[in-house]
Amino acid sequence: MKIELAEKYGFCFGVKRAIKIAEENTDSSTYGPLIHNNKEIERLQKDFKVGLTDDHRSFKSGDKAVIRTHGIPKNELQELKENNVNVVDATCPYVTKPQQICQDMSEEGYDIIIFGDEAHPEIKGVKSYATHGARVVTCSKDLEGVKLKDKIALVAQTTRKVEDYMEVANYLIPRYKEVRVFNTICNATFENQEAVRKISTKADIMIIIGGKNSSNTKQLFSISHDNCSDSYHIEDENDLDYKWFINKKFCGISAGASTPDWIIQNVVNSIKKGS
Amino acid sequence: MKIELAEKYGFCFGVKRAIKIAEENTDSSTYGPLIHNNKEIERLQKDFKVGLTDDHRSFKSGDKAVIRTHGIPKNELQELKENNVNVVDATCPYVTKPQQICQDMSEEGYDIIIFGDEAHPEIKGVKSYATHGARVVTCSKDLEGVKLKDKIALVAQTTRKVEDYMEVANYLIPRYKEVRVFNTICNATFENQEAVRKISTKADIMIIIGGKNSSNTKQLFSISHDNCSDSYHIEDENDLDYKWFINKKFCGISAGASTPDWIIQNVVNSIKKGS
Repeated sequence: MKIELAEKYGFCFGVKRAIKIAEENTDSSTYGPLIHNNKEIERLQKDFKVGLTDDHRSFKSGDKAVIRTHGIPKNELQELKENNVNVVDATCPYVTKPQQICQDMSEEGYDIIIFGDEAHPEIKGVKSYATHGARVVTCSKDLEGVKLKDKIALVAQTTRKVEDYMEVANYLIPRYKEVRVFNTICNATFENQEAVRKISTKADIMIIIGGKNSSNTKQLFSISHDNCSDSYHIEDENDLDYKWFINKKFCGISAGASTPDWIIQNVVNSIKKGS
Repeated sequence: MKIELAEKYGFCFGVKRAIKIAEENTDSSTYGPLIHNNKEIERLQKDFKVGLTDDHRSFKSGDKAVIRTHGIPKNELQELKENNVNVVDATCPYVTKPQQICQDMSEEGYDIIIFGDEAHPEIKGVKSYATHGARVVTCSKDLEGVKLKDKIALVAQTTRKVEDYMEVANYLIPRYKEVRVFNTICNATFENQEAVRKISTKADIMIIIGGKNSSNTKQLFSISHDNCSDSYHIEDENDLDYKWFINKKFCGISAGASTPDWIIQNVVNSIKKGS
């Protein structure tokens, strides 16, 4: 069986940057998981003494708090600063962007629609910057029967599929006077998705590696599954089932933006050994 | 044969307003045809002494110049005012809107894309307000290979089909950081188009009445023809051919925003007599 990696996969700029920041800030704690990959977080804890807490109130004056790639709500960031916590911001600049857009558009009187997952930390953070509130939607159906202002600003979670974003934009544009569409889906997401689209049309089995709570990995899996029904989303080599590979000829591999190379390499080696 | 008018058709707010302004300004001249309907222009000339000139330089100090519904280029309006011509502005407010948007967006540093017909007077006028220039397109193909700024403002000719506008918006949004989509297609256009869409699916012959150079009438004809292959665009009853109606059971009728009721009535009466 041929095993091939997608042309683009794995760590994006924002994740690489955040890990570098964490490695440079030993004896710190991240507030929430730095990235959506437990194995990498364990490595940072073990090798760099970067802890993890789920409550921003547990930081005391002088403590070092590393802000996760997905960002945090505006009021929590303010509280940390007010409590003299040493804030080290590892928010991905592609996430800071929609936060800023929400704040500016709110102040300019636009109704804000955020396309994404309301429960995802990135969106919790982004939404908090909309001074006058924002509505989070996953598809145009969420907007049916909703009455909005005539000026709308639309932003997207950085890791979403552009086709789904366009579905929401296409619903809004004919119905309102001005729709200001900000393309906040990040380049790495675009490129990784494009590469998965390409390889999954050729492969007869696809393995997508990444945290189960990783939004961008889930999108990669969804695109892969559209083209190749034998697609599997795994966290690491332990999730592999060798029966999947029986009679397969071409195994395509991709990985989410928060999946480190060493995990990808372990998966490739395991498939090679097992198949 | 059943003859039925579309639920919405004919004169729009802007045309009604312009005709009223012209009727109130006898002994004036319009610069370019007030609306795209020769019969109505003849009536205004005959009954209200509203002349017509194709050269704005022919107006002298003290002359009364009525500005057409489609608007005119900014510099020509300025020249008229500088030459102390008495300017009576009958520009449709729905056209003034995209003119203003072009000016504001140009000043805010956006690249401006106008969806419409470069040769149409409305678009010549609208484009002239884009201080730093604008690109006029009729479909996304016109944008292929074109490099634009990361901030784009998109406006539409008031009389265009929204599906075609969305095609251009859908090309731009995934490719640029911010696309500010202004829905400048006017309500009357929307409503007349929606009504034609509805009736043309039921009719076995469709008659669309309006000036041959009327953009909105052409769009109505295009929608009608998509649903009913026996669709005809006529200017008045003299263009009717009674052979069209042989064996037909349901004749649907619509008319462009610049088609006066008396022409529509003449057409209906002629069909009734002839068929």
